[in-house]
This record gives sequence, structure tokens and C-alpha cells, in this order.
Amino acid sequence: MRSVAQRHPDNPIITPAMVRPSRPDLRVVGAFNPGVTRQDGETVLLLRVAEAPSTVAEGDVAAPIFEPRSGELLVRRWSREAPGVDASDPRMIVADGQSWLTSISHLRVARSTDGIHFDIETSPALAPATPYEAFGVEDARISRIGETYWINYTAVSSHGIATGLASTYDFKKFERHGLIFPPNNRDVTIFPEPIGRRWAALHRPMPSGLGTTAIWLATSPDMMAWGGHRLVAEPRPGLWDEVKIGGGAVPFHVRAGNRDAWLAVYHGVTGSPHRYALGALVLDATDPSRVLGRSREPILQPEAPYERAGFFAEVVFTCGLLTPNDGAGDGTVRVYYGAADGVTAVVDLSLDEIIAGLE
Amino acid sequence: MRSVAQRHPDNPIITPAMVRPSRPDLRVVGAFNPGVTRQDGETVLLLRVAEAPSTVAEGDVAAPIFEPRSGELLVRRWSREAPGVDASDPRMIVADGQSWLTSISHLRVARSTDGIHFDIETSPALAPATPYEAFGVEDARISRIGETYWINYTAVSSHGIATGLASTYDFKKFERHGLIFPPNNRDVTIFPEPIGRRWAALHRPMPSGLGTTAIWLATSPDMMAWGGHRLVAEPRPGLWDEVKIGGGAVPFHVRAGNRDAWLAVYHGVTGSPHRYALGALVLDATDPSRVLGRSREPILQPEAPYERAGFFAEVVFTCGLLTPNDGAGDGTVRVYYGAADGVTAVVDLSLDEIIAGLE
Repeated sequence: MRSVAQRHPDNPIITPAMVRPSRPDLRVVGAFNPGVTRQDGETVLLLRVAEAPSTVAEGDVAAPIFEPRSGELLVRRWSREAPGVDASDPRMIVADGQSWLTSISHLRVARSTDGIHFDIETSPALAPATPYEAFGVEDARISRIGETYWINYTAVSSHGIATGLASTYDFKKFERHGLIFPPNNRDVTIFPEPIGRRWAALHRPMPSGLGTTAIWLATSPDMMAWGGHRLVAEPRPGLWDEVKIGGGAVPFHVRAGNRDAWLAVYHGVTGSPHRYALGALVLDATDPSRVLGRSREPILQPEAPYERAGFFAEVVFTCGLLTPNDGAGDGTVRVYYGAADGVTAVVDLSLDEIIAGLE
Repeated sequence: MRSVAQRHPDNPIITPAMVRPSRPDLRVVGAFNPGVTRQDGETVLLLRVAEAPSTVAEGDVAAPIFEPRSGELLVRRWSREAPGVDASDPRMIVADGQSWLTSISHLRVARSTDGIHFDIETSPALAPATPYEAFGVEDARISRIGETYWINYTAVSSHGIATGLASTYDFKKFERHGLIFPPNNRDVTIFPEPIGRRWAALHRPMPSGLGTTAIWLATSPDMMAWGGHRLVAEPRPGLWDEVKIGGGAVPFHVRAGNRDAWLAVYHGVTGSPHRYALGALVLDATDPSRVLGRSREPILQPEAPYERAGFFAEVVFTCGLLTPNDGAGDGTVRVYYGAADGVTAVVDLSLDEIIAGLE
């Protein structure tokens, strides 16, 4: 079945032009993939703000890098035509025998009373600070547990793509807790309550050779250390999520059929040409490694102009949503998502339709 | 400096011919990479026993696979000349769009009173039993803590290369504890005592794209869940460990210079042509992510005929050793190692020489 996605008429609700650069020599090229939560009656986003050097000579490419020893941001530059330089992917540069990113991301707080119009803070909330974050911090997911907001994020560096953990009570002061998943592992979503006395998270290792980029479950006694890894879902050949899949928004409780379950909105990728779309996984309430249902067709796919064209075209990607309990409306999930790796948009989806589209 | 390695004159001390196949239709092609410990005055090995189908038609290739649903071992066969079949690496086959292994490994107990002549049990101790072990269980490391022997091993399947944990008190009855590191991650060595109230382990994630196959440290409150990941050591361009490195034997206490430290024997790989050799890392006693010293030259490298030729030539690879406290002799470490991915050999190395060769 085809889902009737109610994109907000003000989309994209956040664009790079609305975000103040963290330094005068940088320009904001992306404000997207926000983690989402509620605090004191407001909707709080933790935006991924991607910045690139504001001046790059014609024919050159540049990569901004956080240098952990000095605490400075440096810019490396290469001629696009130099031997061994490959800048065909707008997101990265291959040069000097390794990969570099063309932009560096930090996380920025934005707040709203209506969920559509946001006040975006003028400085970063979480910026690169460790050797594992030298290429940026990206794609926050926020799990509220009691009074604590647990934030996991992607930590990128020449050591690989890993997942870091931080926490906050107020979105002003943040505490880092180190890397919870070693490289390469991203798209982590921590369930908002313990399951069978342990915390649980979906994660997405990226094996090469043997194995696929699939979604796994891990459990933890303390939120810092994770084990008991079990496979949850793999890409499905011939379907919309055939190339790779990964966790999206933090899972939430639903009633599916006659049983309680978890619903996790995830992303899947089709190859050649690539397209990132969203679907749903319904997972057993007490053993979330058991898949009870999965979207046969995407619940959201690139259709709007700001999704089909941009920094990295044909992408919708979510890191957070609001449920009916969060005030999204009866029977509605309000999904915040990054479009074309550049802007933030919002869509209201019917829970009944999502559940009717499961197989 | 060049280490004077005292290879035992009876090397290789264990060969496939000494090992009884687990089934009449299989032949043993490797008995190597043993985990090592001491129990009741005996040296105990947990050998990796690799088996292949005993009959493969000329021009064909075959892959044995454990089928977790039926609990049976199946053999898949392809013509070597069929389209899409690549059998150029003796260890694996690419066919039907994925990779398969030409042999399947289990773990087998062997015991000795003199450390050289071993009684090898006639049936497996730990054989593939889960979907994550469909292609075999490999390369055990044994960490004795109190009366418990903790065994980590590589679990290989089409889902990737992960690390499983088991425990035993007697090497007769084994308990499995699930996957402690998701794919791809192998060459895990668990420190034999807590460090700062948490267990610690070296592990070897295998990122692709960004990142190198380097050695990381993780810590755990309960041996099952692991976090706090920190980089320990990376490959060194131009040296003997330039391509990739990984943990080898379980770390042990040494006195290096004027301080207490951990010594970890690890493996490093040179490329084109490949060569697997062994070296030492000396790690800070209380923060083992801090490297205090590292072998400039290998402490053991392929030189003997059984190391230079065999199933996979030019390989020495260790999963375990005995220290002076284990009865290896004063100032001596007795390293058990796999040679050419086929046989087991033993070498006595001088601790003073290892420490003198650090940089």
C-alpha cells in the first residue's frame, strides 16, 4: 500500500541559511538529521550542522579537520586535478591515500513551541572534541529516560565511524561517556526503557567481505558497555531496502494486531541510482530482536523537490520523531527528517497506515 | 635487533594427521592457532580444527556449512569454472554473490604433561551451534580468572566475523554467553584480571573506507557487555606490521624498564607478498590503552619450512602462550602458534630480548 504522507507546507522547516556558522571562515552547508525530544512543553531538536570552508579556490577541494592536540579546526586543501585526488562524491575526498570529509558537523540545539518554527542556538551544543571526532559529530538520537536525555551520535575520524554517548539534563550542559560502539558502527537507537532489566539498542555494524550492513540488537547493564549482539533485520534483495538498512528514530510502544510491540522507523537504501527511504520495523515487546512486521513499501520516500535535489540528492533520513504521547496528534507520528543531506523537514504519518503496510 | 627464537626440535608438535575427524566424510586440514592455559599441572590447548569434505570431485570446490535450523552440517559444491565462482584464495570461495569458507572449524581440547606431546580429544569441545557460527568457530583465547576459564572465539557466518564468549571450569562442560563484539571484530584477548574495577580486552574492529584494522581497548562491568572503546595501536607504514595488526595471546604482567606493565604478543601483516609475524606491545599497567613500547622488528617471523609453506603460506599466528609463572622457564615465554594455517608449533622466547627490542 502507498502511505499518504502529510508533508508540512512550510517544508523545509530548517535550512542552512537559518543557522549561524560556528566560525566566520566557515559556511553552513547542512542543517539536517535532527535528534528530537520534548522538554518543558517545547520540541527540542539536536540538529546536525555541517560546515565547509567559506572560501575554496576554483579547481580546489578542501576538508576541515578538528585537530585534537591543539583543539583547533584546520582546513586541508588539494587541487581537484592532483594525482590520487578523487572528489567525485560531494561528501568526501580521497587524497593522500585516505578519505576526508568535505564538511565537518557539530550538533546544535533548536527549540520550538509549535514544532515547526524553531529558535536555533547561535553556537554548537556538542562539537568535535576527541581524536575520534576529528571529522565531525553527526546524527544524534535522543532517548529520554527519567530526567536524563541520553544522546548517541556518530563520531567520525580517520580511525573510522564509531558511536559516542553523551547525556544532558537541560540541553545546556553535556557530559560525554566515550564510545559505546567501535568502528564501523552508526545509526544506533537506544530504547527509552529497560527490557528485561537491561538497556537495549539497535545498532548497525558495517562488515565488509562476509556480512551485510544490517540492523543488530545489543543490551547493556549500564548504558556504557554493550553486548549480547543479535541480528534483527537484513537488507531485502529486490525491495526498497535492498542495499543497506540502519536504525532511524528511537523505538516507541505501539499496539500492533492484538499485541504490544515496539515500532522503529528505519532507513533503507536502493542502489543504482541510490535512494534513501524510510520504513517501519515492528519488534517483539520483550525480545526486540524478533521482527513481527516490516514495511513492504516505504512509509516516506524522496518525492518533494528538497528531497530529490540538494547536497546529496534522493535522500530522506530520520533520527527522531514525536509520538501521540509527545503531542504529535491522535494516531499520528510526526517524523523530523533530513532531506538531501541539507535541510530539515517534517511529515505527519498515520500510525494505522504504517501498521496496515506491514508484512 | 634480531630475536633468537628457540623453535622446538619436534615442531610442528601437532599436525592434522594427529586429529580424528569429527565425521567420517570430513578430513582434517588444519590443527592450529590454539588457545593455551594450565590446569591441574597440565598444559591445555583449545585447538582450532579445520575440516573439509573428504571427497571433492576434480574441478569442483566445496564449502561445508553448519545449518542452525536442522543442526546438520551441509556441503555446498560448485564447479571451479562456473560463472561468478572465484576460488583463487585457498581459504574461501566467492559464489552465488557471497563468500564461503573452504573448511569449517571447531575447537578441540588437547592436554600434555610436558607441553610438547599432546593427547588430543577425539571429539569437538565447542562446535558450531548458532546462526553466527554457521561457517565455524575459530581462534580461541583463554583467560583464567579464579576457577573459571573464559574463552573467546571467532564466530564466522554469512552475517560476518564476530566474537563469541564461552566459559568452562573443567574443559568438559562449556557454557556459551553470546556475542561480545559484533561483526567484523576478531582477535579479542581478555585481560586476566580487572583493571580499575572493570574487565578489559583488546579487540580488533575491521572498518572499511575510513579507518584501519587496528587494536582497540574496551572495558566491561560483567564480561558480557563491552564499551569505552579506545584506540591502542595502528599498523605502521613501512614496518613489518604495515597492513594490519590484531591481538594474539592474552596479556601478562611484566617489569619493563622500571615499571610494571602488560605485555601483549600480537600479530602484524606485511603486504605484497603477505607475511604474518609476531611482535610485542607493552601497555601501561593501569591504563592499557597507553602503549609504552612496541617491537621494532618481529619477535617471530616465518622462517621454518612448516611456516613458509602449507595451507596458507608465510604465516605465524598466536592465540596463547605460557609465562614463567606458568612454568615456561625463568625469563622465558613459551609461545604456541599456528604455522601456515595448518599446524601447531612452539617456540621459547627470551623476555629480556623481547623487552630489549622495544621502541
